[in-house]
Amino acid sequence: MKYVTFLSADGPRVGLLTSPSTVTEVLVAGGLPEVITTGGDLPLGAEHAYTDLTILAPIPEPARNIMCVGKNYREHASEFAGSGYDGGADVVVPQFPIIFTKAPSSVTGPDTTVVPPSVVKETDYEAEFAVIIGRGGRDITKDEAMSHVWGYTLINDLTARDLQRDHKQWFLGKSPDGFAPMGPLAVTADEVNLDELVLTGTVNGELRQKASAADLIFDVPTLIATISSVLTLQPGDIIATGTPAGVGIGFTPPRFLTAGDIVEVSAPGLGVLRTTIG
Amino acid sequence: MKYVTFLSADGPRVGLLTSPSTVTEVLVAGGLPEVITTGGDLPLGAEHAYTDLTILAPIPEPARNIMCVGKNYREHASEFAGSGYDGGADVVVPQFPIIFTKAPSSVTGPDTTVVPPSVVKETDYEAEFAVIIGRGGRDITKDEAMSHVWGYTLINDLTARDLQRDHKQWFLGKSPDGFAPMGPLAVTADEVNLDELVLTGTVNGELRQKASAADLIFDVPTLIATISSVLTLQPGDIIATGTPAGVGIGFTPPRFLTAGDIVEVSAPGLGVLRTTIG
Repeated sequence: MKYVTFLSADGPRVGLLTSPSTVTEVLVAGGLPEVITTGGDLPLGAEHAYTDLTILAPIPEPARNIMCVGKNYREHASEFAGSGYDGGADVVVPQFPIIFTKAPSSVTGPDTTVVPPSVVKETDYEAEFAVIIGRGGRDITKDEAMSHVWGYTLINDLTARDLQRDHKQWFLGKSPDGFAPMGPLAVTADEVNLDELVLTGTVNGELRQKASAADLIFDVPTLIATISSVLTLQPGDIIATGTPAGVGIGFTPPRFLTAGDIVEVSAPGLGVLRTTIG
Repeated sequence: MKYVTFLSADGPRVGLLTSPSTVTEVLVAGGLPEVITTGGDLPLGAEHAYTDLTILAPIPEPARNIMCVGKNYREHASEFAGSGYDGGADVVVPQFPIIFTKAPSSVTGPDTTVVPPSVVKETDYEAEFAVIIGRGGRDITKDEAMSHVWGYTLINDLTARDLQRDHKQWFLGKSPDGFAPMGPLAVTADEVNLDELVLTGTVNGELRQKASAADLIFDVPTLIATISSVLTLQPGDIIATGTPAGVGIGFTPPRFLTAGDIVEVSAPGLGVLRTTIG
């Protein structure tokens, strides 16, 4: 099933795509997190044309920071290590998953304009697919991990490269307001075959990033097992799985985003996540 | 004013210390975050003896990750750089604040037993004082910053040094379940003079850490200005300000915590935050 969160006169509401162009409201008060924890069939309400709706991020206000994975595709690990922005990195391909977070306040929906803070001079894009956790838990094994996945969405892990470099730990460079465009769809796991998922990132229509989810250095079961070996995963947790090669700092000179640029992250079945830089 | 969050038969409740030994329930449904956003006088309920209560973390379930500052005292920056755990650090004293996060699920109260996950072999303590944000905002200037502080509490920024080193970014090593003991008190800003605040950390009664809050490399106004220059601070946000010298990896060989160890973080007026390692 494909869900969206959309803006109604009464605030955010969850909708189910009952046809490619029809969104039928799901009658829950608690947003997509309630759909995730409730499971099963939920009562449906009014139908809307998809194109009439303002689509928000699937979970506009996550209950905690988004967990993200750094350098999780080989070619990207290589371009990042060679960029001069990955200060002090002694190993190109990580031996262990690199996990950092983005603040919930960085989340924004598709088709929004993101204005970088004035202190940010080097804004970069990162096309990613993200896992949405369904059933929480600790010490989840790799074998069990996929049964804890509720579904998937797209994220543009926008990054202030200057802050990422200067502040050493990446939280600030990853967390400016609006730097986590997410959506448009939240698609349940049964509809996504990770072995066939191809992720694409473009800037002003020019292909910059393209990779198969099967090429992740640390695959989804490994990420879930690693994280849950130290902390309890919760329903609605979001894990952004890392970006492929082709980001702005992979070019010489770097190709940072500037006002008016349009970035699109897409994957067949997961829709197109379009962001304008303001 | 000094507040606590305590466990009642109906769940967590907020209390006000109306004498050093008396906790008077504050009649709010939304916990300390509601006290923070409401401000002013709130209706009071039943009185309890402090010693009869199970004291929880002031905010047992923060709305997002705790923001923490790395290497924010000179001597600690030096001991960490010399420990071999700060891989690739090219500068001992940071030029910019190093900000990372701890998962909300790592929060636990005072007087609890924290059992490190089985994957963690090197558990270390970090005595810290933390700022609780009252009024949120973006682009808060240093001059305005202190007016956004609601109050202070104590944190033991427990750290899995092996995970901190191996995973490069610190989130996983900082976020095991229970690795953020917090409290016992949440004290409003008018009762705390940061120029005189002396923070102490002991292990089994042995003094390990002692420093003045005035010795922070990046002081509280600078931290608030830096963070809010990229993301919107929110009421109830928690910023742990960094730990002084004397942590376990500062010794040769390192002195990691083992089962049965008792760590105490304290500061006059902020109480004693006692944690037993399980």
